[in-house]
Amino acid sequence: MSTTQIPLADLPGRPCPIAAGLEVVGERWALLVVRELGLGAHRFTDIVAGTGAPRDRVTARLKALTEAGVVERRQYQSGPDRFDYHLTESGRALVPVLDALLDWGREWAVAPDDPDLPRHRTVRSRQEAR
Amino acid sequence: MSTTQIPLADLPGRPCPIAAGLEVVGERWALLVVRELGLGAHRFTDIVAGTGAPRDRVTARLKALTEAGVVERRQYQSGPDRFDYHLTESGRALVPVLDALLDWGREWAVAPDDPDLPRHRTVRSRQEAR
Repeated sequence: MSTTQIPLADLPGRPCPIAAGLEVVGERWALLVVRELGLGAHRFTDIVAGTGAPRDRVTARLKALTEAGVVERRQYQSGPDRFDYHLTESGRALVPVLDALLDWGREWAVAPDDPDLPRHRTVRSRQEAR
Repeated sequence: MSTTQIPLADLPGRPCPIAAGLEVVGERWALLVVRELGLGAHRFTDIVAGTGAPRDRVTARLKALTEAGVVERRQYQSGPDRFDYHLTESGRALVPVLDALLDWGREWAVAPDDPDLPRHRTVRSRQEAR
């Protein structure tokens, strides 16, 4: 399935691919769901725990991101049927966006001496380790 | 004024600078307001036109981004007093995030033959032209 394409003329304001991209992944929890999948959390419960988002918001985001072609839902067990979630090619292509946000967040939105700072893992390093 | 720093322990979910960054600039219109300022639209009316956001949303975003230290409000005229908006150092540091979103949007969220595609300008090229 291809990724949703937004006609630039349909956007309010400037016809710009940044706005088109944000139509797909600009909702508050969307990029954090993509981050979790990029870090290897594929099951619903793990995505909820990793994002810290309400369960119904994660459900809505996974549905929207799947419909947009950024996320793929896969059956990994039958009887009972169980599904998990994976990034598509366009989802994996969001890693540079996450890394840019990581760099900015680390530089500007987190105190240099934040005690939790050493604990975070980068999406890039995880992808490279594969 | 420094940029808002979010204690990672206060975040829901994974203690991660991406989430901290999105606490500051994750609202739907925030990055488009930053884009407009990066492209040289500094007055309220131009920011509204460029983003296509409702005026009250732009007002709320400019206030929040100013409080967060990403945007600076400057008086450019007195009697009557008039103000415009500029990126701070941390706001300018968001250009790589916008460029990553631009690359992703152009590759995945816009049709290759979109008639408006040649018309968009990049934030990077505008910054470099200065």
